[in-house]
Amino acid sequence: MEKLNNEVTPSHRDLAPDFKEKYFKQVLDHFNYNSLGNGTYDQRYLITDQSWKKGNGPIFFYTGNEGDIWEFARNTGFITELAAVQGALVIFAEHRYYGKSLPFGKDSFNIPEVGLLTVEQALADYAVMITELKEELGAQKCPVIVFGGSYGGMLSVYMRIRYPNIVTGALAASAPILSTAGLGDSRQFFQDVTADFEKFKPACRDAVQGAFQKLNTLAQQKGIHCIQSAFSLCKTPSTPKDIHQLMGLLRNAFTMMAMLDYPYSTHFMGSMPAFPVKVLDWSLAQKASAFILCRPTGIVYNSTGQLTCYDLYSLYVECADPTGCGLGFDSYAWDYQACTEIEMCYESNNVTDMFPPMAFTEQQREQYCSKRWGVVPRPGWLKTQYWGDDLATASNIIFSNGDLDPWANGGIRKSLSPSLIAINIPEGAHHLDLRESNPNDPESVIMARKEESEIIARWVKAAMKESS
Amino acid sequence: MEKLNNEVTPSHRDLAPDFKEKYFKQVLDHFNYNSLGNGTYDQRYLITDQSWKKGNGPIFFYTGNEGDIWEFARNTGFITELAAVQGALVIFAEHRYYGKSLPFGKDSFNIPEVGLLTVEQALADYAVMITELKEELGAQKCPVIVFGGSYGGMLSVYMRIRYPNIVTGALAASAPILSTAGLGDSRQFFQDVTADFEKFKPACRDAVQGAFQKLNTLAQQKGIHCIQSAFSLCKTPSTPKDIHQLMGLLRNAFTMMAMLDYPYSTHFMGSMPAFPVKVLDWSLAQKASAFILCRPTGIVYNSTGQLTCYDLYSLYVECADPTGCGLGFDSYAWDYQACTEIEMCYESNNVTDMFPPMAFTEQQREQYCSKRWGVVPRPGWLKTQYWGDDLATASNIIFSNGDLDPWANGGIRKSLSPSLIAINIPEGAHHLDLRESNPNDPESVIMARKEESEIIARWVKAAMKESS
Repeated sequence: MEKLNNEVTPSHRDLAPDFKEKYFKQVLDHFNYNSLGNGTYDQRYLITDQSWKKGNGPIFFYTGNEGDIWEFARNTGFITELAAVQGALVIFAEHRYYGKSLPFGKDSFNIPEVGLLTVEQALADYAVMITELKEELGAQKCPVIVFGGSYGGMLSVYMRIRYPNIVTGALAASAPILSTAGLGDSRQFFQDVTADFEKFKPACRDAVQGAFQKLNTLAQQKGIHCIQSAFSLCKTPSTPKDIHQLMGLLRNAFTMMAMLDYPYSTHFMGSMPAFPVKVLDWSLAQKASAFILCRPTGIVYNSTGQLTCYDLYSLYVECADPTGCGLGFDSYAWDYQACTEIEMCYESNNVTDMFPPMAFTEQQREQYCSKRWGVVPRPGWLKTQYWGDDLATASNIIFSNGDLDPWANGGIRKSLSPSLIAINIPEGAHHLDLRESNPNDPESVIMARKEESEIIARWVKAAMKESS
Repeated sequence: MEKLNNEVTPSHRDLAPDFKEKYFKQVLDHFNYNSLGNGTYDQRYLITDQSWKKGNGPIFFYTGNEGDIWEFARNTGFITELAAVQGALVIFAEHRYYGKSLPFGKDSFNIPEVGLLTVEQALADYAVMITELKEELGAQKCPVIVFGGSYGGMLSVYMRIRYPNIVTGALAASAPILSTAGLGDSRQFFQDVTADFEKFKPACRDAVQGAFQKLNTLAQQKGIHCIQSAFSLCKTPSTPKDIHQLMGLLRNAFTMMAMLDYPYSTHFMGSMPAFPVKVLDWSLAQKASAFILCRPTGIVYNSTGQLTCYDLYSLYVECADPTGCGLGFDSYAWDYQACTEIEMCYESNNVTDMFPPMAFTEQQREQYCSKRWGVVPRPGWLKTQYWGDDLATASNIIFSNGDLDPWANGGIRKSLSPSLIAINIPEGAHHLDLRESNPNDPESVIMARKEESEIIARWVKAAMKESS
């Protein structure tokens, strides 16, 4: 889940609602009383009570995921809009090891310090934070609804199943809880990226599939200078590793366009025009040339047009997540998580998808992760811990997914019970429903938000009744 | 939950059913991929398939608690009896840091090695063990029912709420899930020990209450030689600490008699005659002397009659559990757990109970635990983690309790829903229902076992139906 490196970040506070930024004194290691973590760290959170019916209204709690919490606050306007209607207190909590919530400051990614970065620790952080903040704010009786998108949505699901004593219900948007737990088909992800483009113009698929083959042939036949010039690469791709890196970067451009195929331009995980999948000049597809792959690169990695050439290794960073890890501390953290609990051994193969054959097997993962972080992944752990597809005993969770989102089919697409509700949004990309309302919103997301609002209001009402 | 030090252990294998003793290669640290625990240890378990309908019958899994697993296998005959009727595979798993399941051998109780002793690690051990053994034994479709007594019963509850994907139902016998999570009245425990004796003979209470007062006066008035001779102490109790230790030892004698007030003689947590509460010669109560407190000491600490004098500090070891910790590695482990997650700040006060005023406050706990183990307890943690009394979303748990057991009122005494069932056994001591059937069993425990059997059969049947 790469953050693109092209972003011109707007001033957070200009765009975000009226949040106060605060820090919570958090337990470093919830699961070992004698570890190096026998202390506390400062965990950042954002809070606004501007809509709150103090002491009575619910608490809407965003379970922060892999990035700066302001980034999520700015791009999750649905929560504050809903809070205004339902009189809720809103909290966005930053995930440990991301943003400014670094337990050991700049040493956080050393070994063994990085070892306290786990899903379990993050959930315990949220459980402890909610419990203490409720006390502090006189909100003991206020039901808590958790919200999250993508990995944050996974965390919302986990919070509800792990801490139903603390969390009344969860809206998990675009949460690939199955595919990240090693369940399902490893070809699904890139197959679904492919499907997005195919759906828009069926000829695309063949054109791109062919273009990748041609690019590969060209590389084999020493056409590297030609490739360098056509793709405006800063350096000549002189090794097989460089070519592999180029393939990864190109595949990822398509992935990002599919994931972020919103009906208006956005600044989330990078900058993207409205309807990026449609923006491509698909007449190029007629040319049957490898170089039709250039255009996506420009859209995704050079939205501002300021780059004069592309540096393969800084624009796309290969890691244990086959969609890339970006740069900086946040990307280290995500790579570590993909090396430990979050399983993403997705492959493309140029048969079930339009991309070059690039596998990422469990063996490759183990090799990479041992070398990079000194860890051995434990396949199956997430399924053991968070129940995989065996959710029969859970309740009060909405699983929303957009049909345009390649992560969607790695999540729950069919309701499992009257209180485990799947909401599918035909015209939705990656957790579009969590974004603030927009004049360009398709009808399907408007309907989804309406349904989500009603369900959440019901949960809150029922919880209030029980506690009174 | 002391193990008495007077036990003449019978050869385990003579009394236990036909178990095979095995070891499971277990993950050392489930919650940190970069810790000192980046490896495995050998976790002991006992297994018998003598009644199992291979591949079809359920799995009865005992979630081992604070001691040698053979001790529990020998004293939990109900499970094997039930397995014979229901065609179940039986596994008794040993808790990490107890018995022979020492993750770091003799270094296990060093700091920081001891840090991997937590409830969470123990539960994850069981989750991983069940998952892998099912695979290995071709038992993927077999529903798992967990059983446990006392702390083991708490673990059974936790397994069901934490891993309902793995565990179909739980029989939690005498599991004080509330009082060990800091919920309820800290005076309840010794009040209920008192009630047992009072119920048998109302005059007892006043006699014992007065005797403790007299003993205290005697100690103040330099009557220590008199005390030494009357109580057959090996050494003169010359300091206030010695007197405090004597008081603790005496209080504990009554506690053990109440807990282990079984209708036949037993060898569990020490040796005890049948009906120990009745065994006392209560005519002594008429004497209104401090020395009526001698007799319980003899029953509890000198059942074999081999001791010629009592050594205060080896017979009773004060620790973070107000009922004492015994000797040896198992007692270190339990002390550590009482210093971290398991909260037992129980007090006696000579008003609501018949014992000397002996408090164990959260402050005293913190002081002791910091000094002994370098840890700071986190009150409220168990409630956060395992839901406290907020069990509304849980299902398929039997909470059985005996009315004679001072731990009972620290547990769930009323059914919370049709699938969260309290079974109370008027004539039952500490998890009597888990013991094998005996000609001296009172009717109430026979009825309880029958009800438990029927409920478990229903759970298994329903789970089989779902998975087919």
